Amino acid sequence: MSKFAKNQWYAAAWLAELGNTLVARRILDEPVVLFRDSDGKVVALADRCPHRLVPLSMGTLVDRGIQCGYHGMVFDGAGRCAHIPGQDKIPPRAEVRSYPIAERYGIAWIWMGDAARADLTRLPVIDHYDDEGWELIDGGYQHHPSNYLNIVENLMDPAHTTFVHKMTIGNPAAKSEPVKMKKEDDYIVAFKWLFNSPPSPMDRQIKDFGDQSVDRGQFFYYYIPAVSRVDIITIPAGLEPTEENFNKGLRNNSYKFLTPETDGSTHFFWMHLRNYKIGDKEWSQRMRGLFEKTFLEDREIEMAMQRSQEELGVRQFVGLEIDRAPTVAIRMIDRLIKEEAKDSGKVAA
Amino acid sequence: MSKFAKNQWYAAAWLAELGNTLVARRILDEPVVLFRDSDGKVVALADRCPHRLVPLSMGTLVDRGIQCGYHGMVFDGAGRCAHIPGQDKIPPRAEVRSYPIAERYGIAWIWMGDAARADLTRLPVIDHYDDEGWELIDGGYQHHPSNYLNIVENLMDPAHTTFVHKMTIGNPAAKSEPVKMKKEDDYIVAFKWLFNSPPSPMDRQIKDFGDQSVDRGQFFYYYIPAVSRVDIITIPAGLEPTEENFNKGLRNNSYKFLTPETDGSTHFFWMHLRNYKIGDKEWSQRMRGLFEKTFLEDREIEMAMQRSQEELGVRQFVGLEIDRAPTVAIRMIDRLIKEEAKDSGKVAA
Amino acid sequence: MSKFAKNQWYAAAWLAELGNTLVARRILDEPVVLFRDSDGKVVALADRCPHRLVPLSMGTLVDRGIQCGYHGMVFDGAGRCAHIPGQDKIPPRAEVRSYPIAERYGIAWIWMGDAARADLTRLPVIDHYDDEGWELIDGGYQHHPSNYLNIVENLMDPAHTTFVHKMTIGNPAAKSEPVKMKKEDDYIVAFKWLFNSPPSPMDRQIKDFGDQSVDRGQFFYYYIPAVSRVDIITIPAGLEPTEENFNKGLRNNSYKFLTPETDGSTHFFWMHLRNYKIGDKEWSQRMRGLFEKTFLEDREIEMAMQRSQEELGVRQFVGLEIDRAPTVAIRMIDRLIKEEAKDSGKVAA
Repeated sequence: MSKFAKNQWYAAAWLAELGNTLVARRILDEPVVLFRDSDGKVVALADRCPHRLVPLSMGTLVDRGIQCGYHGMVFDGAGRCAHIPGQDKIPPRAEVRSYPIAERYGIAWIWMGDAARADLTRLPVIDHYDDEGWELIDGGYQHHPSNYLNIVENLMDPAHTTFVHKMTIGNPAAKSEPVKMKKEDDYIVAFKWLFNSPPSPMDRQIKDFGDQSVDRGQFFYYYIPAVSRVDIITIPAGLEPTEENFNKGLRNNSYKFLTPETDGSTHFFWMHLRNYKIGDKEWSQRMRGLFEKTFLEDREIEMAMQRSQEELGVRQFVGLEIDRAPTVAIRMIDRLIKEEAKDSGKVAA
Repeated sequence: MSKFAKNQWYAAAWLAELGNTLVARRILDEPVVLFRDSDGKVVALADRCPHRLVPLSMGTLVDRGIQCGYHGMVFDGAGRCAHIPGQDKIPPRAEVRSYPIAERYGIAWIWMGDAARADLTRLPVIDHYDDEGWELIDGGYQHHPSNYLNIVENLMDPAHTTFVHKMTIGNPAAKSEPVKMKKEDDYIVAFKWLFNSPPSPMDRQIKDFGDQSVDRGQFFYYYIPAVSRVDIITIPAGLEPTEENFNKGLRNNSYKFLTPETDGSTHFFWMHLRNYKIGDKEWSQRMRGLFEKTFLEDREIEMAMQRSQEELGVRQFVGLEIDRAPTVAIRMIDRLIKEEAKDSGKVAA
Repeated sequence: MSKFAKNQWYAAAWLAELGNTLVARRILDEPVVLFRDSDGKVVALADRCPHRLVPLSMGTLVDRGIQCGYHGMVFDGAGRCAHIPGQDKIPPRAEVRSYPIAERYGIAWIWMGDAARADLTRLPVIDHYDDEGWELIDGGYQHHPSNYLNIVENLMDPAHTTFVHKMTIGNPAAKSEPVKMKKEDDYIVAFKWLFNSPPSPMDRQIKDFGDQSVDRGQFFYYYIPAVSRVDIITIPAGLEPTEENFNKGLRNNSYKFLTPETDGSTHFFWMHLRNYKIGDKEWSQRMRGLFEKTFLEDREIEMAMQRSQEELGVRQFVGLEIDRAPTVAIRMIDRLIKEEAKDSGKVAA
């Protein structure tokens, strides 16, 4: 049984990374090379020439596809060999695996499982992307040397903010709020409200609230297997909590797309959408810096956990109340992987 | 069966290291964090939060103990959980192992085995520590990437001095002396006398011997499992070799406390006591430099041995006469470990 | 069965490396120390003192041989212990393995197998070495972190030149020529002729050909298990292709001596002989730089192959026509290793 759910879309690269270059990236522990074919379409191939196993990413982009840097074999975007220098006949095994790619939200999404099942309707949905009145920060990437489950747990757990992020977004004065939870088939959300409070210092920088009290909601969504969305809402105290009213307040949507690199490391892509300070690039720059620093604080913890888990072969010794939502999230992934394995029978890799 | 004798005191840290900080150190292949509790008492805990396995040493010192840097769980010096943010009930398994600590001779001694057997009467004894008329050099520490048995053998073997320490304390002109040996239950000493000789160049720097001949004794003590003491004595030739007379001559007591870090690396703590040049800090500084350099010469050899042993899976191919005392020392450790294993029955880790 | 053919001569070191020093080098995955004995003869010993396994190369050269840096044991060039400080009796096991060495062509050749079979008539033969009218570039060495079979294949395969060496010796305009092959018991040669063509740009730098057309031959010899010779000949078009005529044209003989260091790395020694620009040291320097750069281009590819092979446990997925000669070469090595194993029966290491 694979350690990963494979029949899923994972963020493989920012489209902006894929200009006139070859991008080599290990995804679900397989070496992949991404590039644009001569039509500008993003394609992804197994990053190994079938001849001598040299990574194709050491080669060059040519009209018909990618040319191996060792003996010049050319493979097209479908992984078919289009040319062998000095040889007319193309052997049947002269091919490399091609992975389905979808381009959306500025991201190349890859499908590492059964290509026949690649289903565009299952791509992640990012609300308000490209909407007027919403400002986007994108292109975020960090390499986190930790299993992606550790990152999922971290992102489903607001309790660590006070301790891990005291230098960035943590608020030591914040009184612990009870966290609630809602689970659907393909996602889970943990959330808490702070009612009728003064606005946060940062909210005051965004808008003049005067003496007005606010209700502040924090929603931690996790869509299996690889998308986290943190939705933070500040609305006037007492306003009915509807999606429409949320958009009238200050709203932050922070997305992370977690793509396992190996069993012990993760590609951490992130973007952020807000409904205020539209067009304010200076504010965006400042937020970007704050987010990067915050995620690096998490990274330190995640790395330490990874080392302990590798040494001990377990993930934890005692559970806490704050683990409820993360525990459900991990179980959802477990079930997904098991279902995939059952589904594909003995074919599962 | 453990590779190490566990029901023993090992040097864990210099007390001077333990101010207002957390000291993380792997000891007998277990991660340990040392700190002073609010009463100033040194305590040692397993360096892993039982919740998510993050090292507690990444956290902070608080009034009630140590606070995990991930979710703020607090553990007191006994390893009991004293606080969980946002949760009133402390689960029974929310605890970490606490190791007995004894503070003596400027050192925090740790007992890694069965806490119920931790016995202060079994602490190492350092003669003349704090005695008037004796000058101390302490605080010495080196990390030696070699199994501690290689270091024990080295310290029981004066024969290597001519070859390994030719740039420091070696004396190429020294004629080999027959080494004698005495074994007791818990220690062994190898020793040799050079009778009726001119004083060494260094002894002449310490004292004006005129034309006087001296007897020079070298005693290499090893107290299982982890203490080495080299006792070097220069007395007027012919003086009766009694403990009382030794103290009338020039006397150097060099102590090393070997604490296995892993199977292939060792914490090497050292101190030195002398009965001359009392209060002479400049001389102490010079000796400290000489010792550090000497121990680094041994370290090179020990590292090379470790690499060979790891590759070959053996410790030596042929024995020499000079191996007598080291061989007995190694056997004493072997027996100690076997007795511990038998003693603890199937519980032995 | 060994991974290597052992009853063979391998290049161990340049004689010029062996002055008044100890050269430590792992060969066929065994640690070896090379030095000149007091007669100036090169000797090779297992690089481990049999006492405590310290590498002898950490010791010093003395009159009677090599002295261990730990306790001063001295071993002569035959590996016999000649002296133990402080001990008169030499134990029978106080010896180290000695390897046969032959000095020829500026190289110390080592025989890692059964010493009784070391046969000087089986040393590699280098034509025109020391001949008048031939200019030598020698002393070349690179460390290639790849199994030597990958390097053998590379050296038997002219097809990669266009792609790997486009910055150095590759000629993108060169039309692919059919490669022919001839196999004998102990060598194989792949070769191709380009008939009646204009001289190459480099050939024009060497000699004024005027309007003359040339025939250009490239011969890729591989002598099992470890010698590659690339013989490149430029003669007037139509001249009969005889060895005598070859020497009348421009001729380059590029030798590589591949000595496995481990299963995944290789000592790459090289020398070059030419029959033009005799005594032109500036030209030699320029060629040396070009060769070094070219071999480093190959090294990049070889390293990448090694990593893929280690991950996948296979060497290739599909064969091409250009693999004919390399495949035969690899089979010749395989057979040699199998014959050695059969020959030595159960004694094979």
